[in-house]
Amino acid sequence: MKGLVGILGGMGPGATVDAMQKLIKNTPVYRDQDHIPMIAVSIPDIPDRTECILDHSASPLEKMIQYMKLLENAGAECIIIPCNTAHYWFNELKLHSRVEMISIIDATCQLIQDKKISSVGLLATTATIKAQIYQGNLEKSGIACYVPTEGEQSAVMDSIYAYKSGDAQTAHRILTPIKNRMLQDGVEKIILGCTELPLILEQEIKTAPESYIDATEALIKKTVAWYFAHPHPNEVAA
Amino acid sequence: MKGLVGILGGMGPGATVDAMQKLIKNTPVYRDQDHIPMIAVSIPDIPDRTECILDHSASPLEKMIQYMKLLENAGAECIIIPCNTAHYWFNELKLHSRVEMISIIDATCQLIQDKKISSVGLLATTATIKAQIYQGNLEKSGIACYVPTEGEQSAVMDSIYAYKSGDAQTAHRILTPIKNRMLQDGVEKIILGCTELPLILEQEIKTAPESYIDATEALIKKTVAWYFAHPHPNEVAA
Repeated sequence: MKGLVGILGGMGPGATVDAMQKLIKNTPVYRDQDHIPMIAVSIPDIPDRTECILDHSASPLEKMIQYMKLLENAGAECIIIPCNTAHYWFNELKLHSRVEMISIIDATCQLIQDKKISSVGLLATTATIKAQIYQGNLEKSGIACYVPTEGEQSAVMDSIYAYKSGDAQTAHRILTPIKNRMLQDGVEKIILGCTELPLILEQEIKTAPESYIDATEALIKKTVAWYFAHPHPNEVAA
Repeated sequence: MKGLVGILGGMGPGATVDAMQKLIKNTPVYRDQDHIPMIAVSIPDIPDRTECILDHSASPLEKMIQYMKLLENAGAECIIIPCNTAHYWFNELKLHSRVEMISIIDATCQLIQDKKISSVGLLATTATIKAQIYQGNLEKSGIACYVPTEGEQSAVMDSIYAYKSGDAQTAHRILTPIKNRMLQDGVEKIILGCTELPLILEQEIKTAPESYIDATEALIKKTVAWYFAHPHPNEVAA
């Protein structure tokens, strides 16, 4: 199916819906039929990514491959994963995939380079930070990347898990002083490098968009560009 | 795959995401893994439902069957369609399906009966109204159903198509006086019988939830009930 975008989701479900919402909002349309075709699996029995990386508990890889295959079999021609931590396994997933895959990490780092930003703060899961999923990529481009202190990082995780448990208010309360401290310390922008973070800081992104790099948004913009770079039936029919 | 909910979406994409969001919000969870597994297809090349019913233009049925089969082949055990007008073809779709299907119309009418409401206003597409998709069902339960005047109905369609074209502000401006007039004329509640309407009236539903019956929400509540009425792996593992 030409141009079908497959979304390997469920990590978590709220972030999956956020990615879909952003795909809709970033597509110029006049009617339903102009939208980018998508298929999303949000089967959340994928083992916790952070726990696996930090504690060597059950790996999410097998389930991710299974649901990626489900998307491919349904006709997806490009697969995206709205979960930063899951990109620890991105290269391995890519080996198993027969279609295009767009990395949220590459999309975000590319955007930061394009905007000529020289210093960023990184908010992400402890696993994303400890596994250096972002830092290596940024530092080789000469971009300074500051991470929270150990105490702050533990609070970031509490915030993310609070959001995943349905408690958005607690998540917001815990996260606010940490992003404030980072901005006060003078980073140019904060990477929201976990797909729950743009949901927790939704209001802040609306009022001060210049302070944040939303990784989900970066992934989606690259996905929209991929779609329009390829001929597809909607384009021909228009 | 036990308990996998299939969402036959794209009519429109915004309404698909709204249904997913409501499925997430209506599920009690502590962590990602507690969520109801779902797969959504939002391939919006399905011909316009209203145009087909009113003007006998291209039928959406063939594409709907195709995408329904895609959901079934991916393992969906229950299929829902977050589009009221599409339910004109519900019985036909059901004939082609090998899994459970929950009707948004039945779910909404059941909710109205359960709440012992005796009069409703119906906001929906012109096709849903002309094809009497709601009225027959309500009237046989003795529930009075009032529809907009012809002039108002034409404005309701303008509002829905404005929203689908990405212009939420115009959609809201056009719809507001119509729902005000209906409420002033004394209907107990207004059925939001097109899945774009809860998006257009999002603020009103928050401030005066007692005035509306959100058909999408009714569908989702019945879907959540279906899920928890069936044994599935998450339940066993908890």
